[in-house]
Amino acid sequence: MSKAIVLTGITTTGTPHLGNYVGAIRPAIAASKDANVTPFYFLADYHALIKCHEPDRVRQSSLEIAATWLALGLDTSNAVFYRQSDVPEILELSWMLTCVAAKGLMNRAHAYKAAVAENEQGGENDPDKGITMGLFSYPILMAADMLMFNANKVPVGKDQIQHIEMARDIAGRFNHIYGEHFVLPEAVVEEHASTLLGLDGRKMSKSYNNTIPLFESEKKLKKLINKIKTNSLEPGEPKDPEGCTLFGIYQAFASQAEVAEIRQRYADGIAWGEMKQVLFEHINEHLIPARERYEALMQAPEHIEEQLQEGAKKARAVSVPFMQELRKAVGISRISL
Amino acid sequence: MSKAIVLTGITTTGTPHLGNYVGAIRPAIAASKDANVTPFYFLADYHALIKCHEPDRVRQSSLEIAATWLALGLDTSNAVFYRQSDVPEILELSWMLTCVAAKGLMNRAHAYKAAVAENEQGGENDPDKGITMGLFSYPILMAADMLMFNANKVPVGKDQIQHIEMARDIAGRFNHIYGEHFVLPEAVVEEHASTLLGLDGRKMSKSYNNTIPLFESEKKLKKLINKIKTNSLEPGEPKDPEGCTLFGIYQAFASQAEVAEIRQRYADGIAWGEMKQVLFEHINEHLIPARERYEALMQAPEHIEEQLQEGAKKARAVSVPFMQELRKAVGISRISL
Repeated sequence: MSKAIVLTGITTTGTPHLGNYVGAIRPAIAASKDANVTPFYFLADYHALIKCHEPDRVRQSSLEIAATWLALGLDTSNAVFYRQSDVPEILELSWMLTCVAAKGLMNRAHAYKAAVAENEQGGENDPDKGITMGLFSYPILMAADMLMFNANKVPVGKDQIQHIEMARDIAGRFNHIYGEHFVLPEAVVEEHASTLLGLDGRKMSKSYNNTIPLFESEKKLKKLINKIKTNSLEPGEPKDPEGCTLFGIYQAFASQAEVAEIRQRYADGIAWGEMKQVLFEHINEHLIPARERYEALMQAPEHIEEQLQEGAKKARAVSVPFMQELRKAVGISRISL
Repeated sequence: MSKAIVLTGITTTGTPHLGNYVGAIRPAIAASKDANVTPFYFLADYHALIKCHEPDRVRQSSLEIAATWLALGLDTSNAVFYRQSDVPEILELSWMLTCVAAKGLMNRAHAYKAAVAENEQGGENDPDKGITMGLFSYPILMAADMLMFNANKVPVGKDQIQHIEMARDIAGRFNHIYGEHFVLPEAVVEEHASTLLGLDGRKMSKSYNNTIPLFESEKKLKKLINKIKTNSLEPGEPKDPEGCTLFGIYQAFASQAEVAEIRQRYADGIAWGEMKQVLFEHINEHLIPARERYEALMQAPEHIEEQLQEGAKKARAVSVPFMQELRKAVGISRISL
C-alpha cells in the first residue's frame, strides 16, 4: 500500500508568529514524523505574489519560514519540503487546468466575492475595482498545487473547504475530457485548530498587526509579552483564565499539570505583571533550543537552500514524469522519435 | 544596433490552408529573410488547449504547421522557430503577469465579451455559461508570449489590436511595480492582408469549413477547386473577375502579366470549368516543390522535431536568463550562496 499524500502550503508573505506555530506549524511538524503518510509541505511563493508586491518581503519571508520549519525539527527524510517556484511544472499544470476550469466556478470563490462585496459596500461603481487576475484565478493554482502530486488529503480551515471542492471539480472535468489522471483530493477539516489571541486580544494574525513573532530575541519577546492587553483587575483579585490572552498562550505551551497550577494561581489572584513574567519564562525556555537553531540557519542560508534543493529534487521526481504524461494526454508532447 | 524582434504565434488547432498561406505564412516567411529583424515564430500549443480538447488534433496540427513553414523555406538561421510548450518560462511569466493584471481589463476583452453576448442573445441566465478560464484569461498568456522575448513588433489583424494594448497595459503595471523589465510591444496592423474566399464564397476559414488545405494531394486539390461555387453564367458570356473566388485565388499566386491575361479571358467569356482547370494547374505547379518537401518532412517527423529543438534552444537562451532576472525582481529567486 502506498502512503497517503498530505499537502500543505505556506504563503511566503509574513514572519511566523506564535499563532502560526501553535495552530499550523507544530501539528504539521508532528505529522511529518508519521510513517504512514508522505507530507508535501511547500513555500507558496507563487501565491505570495498575489498579495505582496514587495520583493524583499517575499524573499525574507521565504527564508524565515523555511528556517522556522527546519529549526523546529521538520523530518525532511519523510516530508517533501520544497519551494513552489522550484517546481515550474505546477504553473504548466495550472494552465492546463485553466483551459478546462469554468469561469463561473471562479465567480463563486469566497475571496473574490468578498473583494467585490467590499467594493460594493464602499460605493464603487466598478465591482472589480482593484481586483487582480491573481486574486480571481488563484483557486486554479491551488488546484494545481494539489493535483500535481495527487495529494490525497489537504488539511484546511473551514473557510478553505471551497478550495478543495474547486480542485475536485476541475480535476473531474480534466479526467472526463482527457482520461483518469488525477486523484480527487479530500479536505481534512481542522475543527479544533488551536488559535491564540494577539497583543490586542483579537485573534493573533498578521492582518491585525498584533502578533508575537516566534523567534523574536529574548529581550523583544519579553517586551511584547509585557504589551499584551489585560483587564484592570488588581493583584490579589481572583481572575478568570478563560478568554485571557496570557492564559491561552501559556496553555498552548504547557503540560496539563502546569496548566492546573496556573489556573489555581489565577484563582488566587496572581498579578498580571507576575503572570507575564511566568509566561515569558515558560515560552522562552520552550523556544530556546529551536531559536538557537533558527538563528544559526539564518546565519547560514546555504543550509536552508540545500534542504530546499533536496526537497525540489524529490518533488520534481514526481512532477516531471507526471507532466510528461499530462502533456501527452492533452496533445502537446514532443514528436516522439 | 540590435535587430527588432517581430513575434508571431500560430495556434495549433487546424491544417494550414490556402488562405493562411496567402494571408499569413507567405509574408511571414518572406519577412524571416529580412536581416534587420529577428522573427520569433512559434507554435502556440498552450493556446490550442483553450479551444481544442482533442489531443490528436492538437498534435497533428503542430506537426502539419511546423512541416508547412519549413517546407515553404522559413529561414531558421535567422528566425527563431519554436513550440511554445518548449519554453515553460512563458507560463511562469504568465503567472507573474496574472498577479498584476487587473480583472477589469479581462472583462473588456473582445473574445470574452462576444461569448457573453452570445449567451445573452441565446437567452441564457448565466452570461458565463460554457466559458472557461482559458478563454477569459488568454490575453495574459499572449502578453507573456510577447514580453518573454521583449518583442518590439507584433503583426496583427485589426481585431487583435486589443491584445497588444492589453500586453502594454500589463507590462506597464509590472514595470511600475518592479522596475523597468519589459519593452512595450507595438502592434503592426496589417491593413492590406490578402484574404481568399473559400469553397462557398465566404472568407476562407476553418470555422466555415470551406477551406482548401495548402498541401492537399494533387487529386484532392483538383476535386476541391472543382467544388468552388461560381455563378451560372454560361461559357462565352463575359464574366466579372472582381469578387470571383477563382480569380481571387489565381491572383494571389500569379504575376501581374498572368493576372492581366486572365482578366482578358474573363472578358472573353471563359467557361467556369476551364477557369477551374487553369487555376488548378497554376497553383498546383506553384506548390509542387514545397508539397514534395512537406510530404518528405511528414514522413520524417524527427527532422521537424530537430528544428523545433534547435529553435527552443535559441528561445530559451533568452527566456531562461530573463526569467532569472524576473524572479529576482519579484522576490522568488533562490537564496544566493
